[in-house]
Amino acid sequence: MSEIRKIKGGATAATGYEAGAVFCGIKSTNKGKPDLALLVSTEPATVAGTFTTNRVKAAPVVVSMDHAKNGRAQAILANSGNANACTGAPGLVNARRTAAATASTLGLDPDEVLVCSTGRIGRPLPVEKMEASLPALANAIHPKGGPGLAKAIMTSDTFAKEFAVAFKIGGKTVRLGGCAKGAGMIDPNMATMLCFLTTDAAIPAPLLRKLLRGAVERSFNRITVDGDMSTNDTVLLLANGASGAAPIRPGSREEDRFQAALDWVTRELSWMIVKDGEGVSKFVEVRVEGAASAKDARLAAEAVANSMLVKCSWAGNDPNWGRIVDAVGYCGAKINPERADIDYDGVPAVRGGLATNTPLARLKQVVRKPRFSIRIDLHEGKAEHVVWTTDLTTEYVVLNLSE
Amino acid sequence: MSEIRKIKGGATAATGYEAGAVFCGIKSTNKGKPDLALLVSTEPATVAGTFTTNRVKAAPVVVSMDHAKNGRAQAILANSGNANACTGAPGLVNARRTAAATASTLGLDPDEVLVCSTGRIGRPLPVEKMEASLPALANAIHPKGGPGLAKAIMTSDTFAKEFAVAFKIGGKTVRLGGCAKGAGMIDPNMATMLCFLTTDAAIPAPLLRKLLRGAVERSFNRITVDGDMSTNDTVLLLANGASGAAPIRPGSREEDRFQAALDWVTRELSWMIVKDGEGVSKFVEVRVEGAASAKDARLAAEAVANSMLVKCSWAGNDPNWGRIVDAVGYCGAKINPERADIDYDGVPAVRGGLATNTPLARLKQVVRKPRFSIRIDLHEGKAEHVVWTTDLTTEYVVLNLSE
Repeated sequence: MSEIRKIKGGATAATGYEAGAVFCGIKSTNKGKPDLALLVSTEPATVAGTFTTNRVKAAPVVVSMDHAKNGRAQAILANSGNANACTGAPGLVNARRTAAATASTLGLDPDEVLVCSTGRIGRPLPVEKMEASLPALANAIHPKGGPGLAKAIMTSDTFAKEFAVAFKIGGKTVRLGGCAKGAGMIDPNMATMLCFLTTDAAIPAPLLRKLLRGAVERSFNRITVDGDMSTNDTVLLLANGASGAAPIRPGSREEDRFQAALDWVTRELSWMIVKDGEGVSKFVEVRVEGAASAKDARLAAEAVANSMLVKCSWAGNDPNWGRIVDAVGYCGAKINPERADIDYDGVPAVRGGLATNTPLARLKQVVRKPRFSIRIDLHEGKAEHVVWTTDLTTEYVVLNLSE
Repeated sequence: MSEIRKIKGGATAATGYEAGAVFCGIKSTNKGKPDLALLVSTEPATVAGTFTTNRVKAAPVVVSMDHAKNGRAQAILANSGNANACTGAPGLVNARRTAAATASTLGLDPDEVLVCSTGRIGRPLPVEKMEASLPALANAIHPKGGPGLAKAIMTSDTFAKEFAVAFKIGGKTVRLGGCAKGAGMIDPNMATMLCFLTTDAAIPAPLLRKLLRGAVERSFNRITVDGDMSTNDTVLLLANGASGAAPIRPGSREEDRFQAALDWVTRELSWMIVKDGEGVSKFVEVRVEGAASAKDARLAAEAVANSMLVKCSWAGNDPNWGRIVDAVGYCGAKINPERADIDYDGVPAVRGGLATNTPLARLKQVVRKPRFSIRIDLHEGKAEHVVWTTDLTTEYVVLNLSE
């Protein structure tokens, strides 16, 4: 088998996808940034989605979950400036109405259109403005529109997030790519994460769902900037088969192949989100090993990755493994403090719960870097978990003072 | 019955207690601040303690838990500058040794002495320096030494925390007071909270434990600055009967009386800790009502009180109830977003999950205040929980960059 290789582009890197964006006036001022974007598959496609587990789900999430149920979709309409969250029954009506208007513009069924919103919550979606702009938007989409889509969904993001790969299935080149917007948001008031993925492989919807679920669990579900989870978080994956490659069958080598490719794309996009966390300066991998159970490993990794005190110490270039021990101690996981080991980029800081002889200056060298890893071995079992996180800076706070 | 009234003083407000503090050199420089303090009951006393639930317990916590088991104690030795945490078996030996040396200096049994440490972790406790200073320290204690003790245990605290009350039992005046040090720490690297309470009431140890447990649950367990829980957190309560009042019996009116007094003292001290949180500018009460269960009420209140995004918005004088809805949504509690109400100091912001017509400017008036309350009614049941918390400011981050 040929290798999976990185290629240029994002959501329109695969064959048979078009995208575009316009400014329709959801935001009060344009500032040269579109607020309405469209991604279309030129052929019928299967779809899989993962959605926020927040009990408060924005209207577009409810509608997209509903429309994705039958496993078919051909278009995604995304807007920024208004999250259409906490908007009650009228919010649902509005979300359905934009999906229907998009479908009618494109000649699709309403349930073939998914809708995503990010921005201010608690305010009515300006549906008329969106509807008025749909014909222009439908005209603006083109096969190289991926970068435009990636830019249009940016809010406080400082760079567009795209990644794509290609590989062969039975002699045919298959492409998979996508774009994402970040988890740390200022203006929109919410930490909404959106990700749109497309492939020209042919994959039946049930398998597509399984593949996406696994990939999201190993990527977007393992990143944290501030531990908050938005009402609008959505990851969508379309598969239109336009590559001409044979459909991927469950249990086949091709399935493993596609999973590896999808894991790569989602991991890269999720890391970009962490690196672009509002005002943060460091990208930190927190890896817990030797936990008694998968749940314990996750508890410990997340407690460390979300501890305000730990994250502040990193911003100050301070190794401060004491705060890490503290977080592991209160996370609820089964631990024996006398057994734990902690490494900074492989440099031993703690062995058996006690400080090593490693000079503090050596550990500081690691923490001063823009990217480093913390490994915590609990010596209680064999379970592992990894989380990617950031430091907590004064810039983060300033950006989140909001309004 | 006469009322419970506030009186001056703290840990030596009650009869039969003496306190003092010296600088013994645990910290490298004096800066006019003692680093070793002693609190002594001149008569045998019963004792109750509540200790950190962190799985990583500092050596002094392990030793004090052990010494408090028999319900008798007469002295508390507290040091700052070194937490004696993550110090392994030698740390335990050192903690026991300082308790024994204090006992020998005062003519007590070692298990009548409790020890508390706060400061840097992972470094050996300088026991020799402490022992060398014990005679001078024993000489320095006096019946008006409470304020000195309160100052000596301060680390990054900006003010000493003392509170005391008096009331009558059977014609005799009973006093109860104490001091505390804060939860947000810079130099010590850990968020250690210490509180020493004394009373001249006579209370059998089992009842004393029950009274303290209840009071701590309603005060120190409901405050949060950054959500982290230290390895050294300790609350101790001594009762020496020096008032001459008859011993308090379980199930009596006097028990209720004492509980009310103890609740008042611990609530005031815990509030002082929140208000003195490092670099914070606001004191916020988060009250969740109408939850389906006590656990749900607690989950929701703590999710809101610990959300970095919510706390940042308060620092920016932004009501931002959307972030509150978001936190309630992901906390795991059973909620129906279409039912939730949110008030800011009684001003309705959300009704049935939707924004009210209250002008944003009115809500901003509330959030601009240094102290305000958020009430969240889930309309799912009858359970309630209240948490006292702070905003998240750039000053907090700067102070916690540490090193």
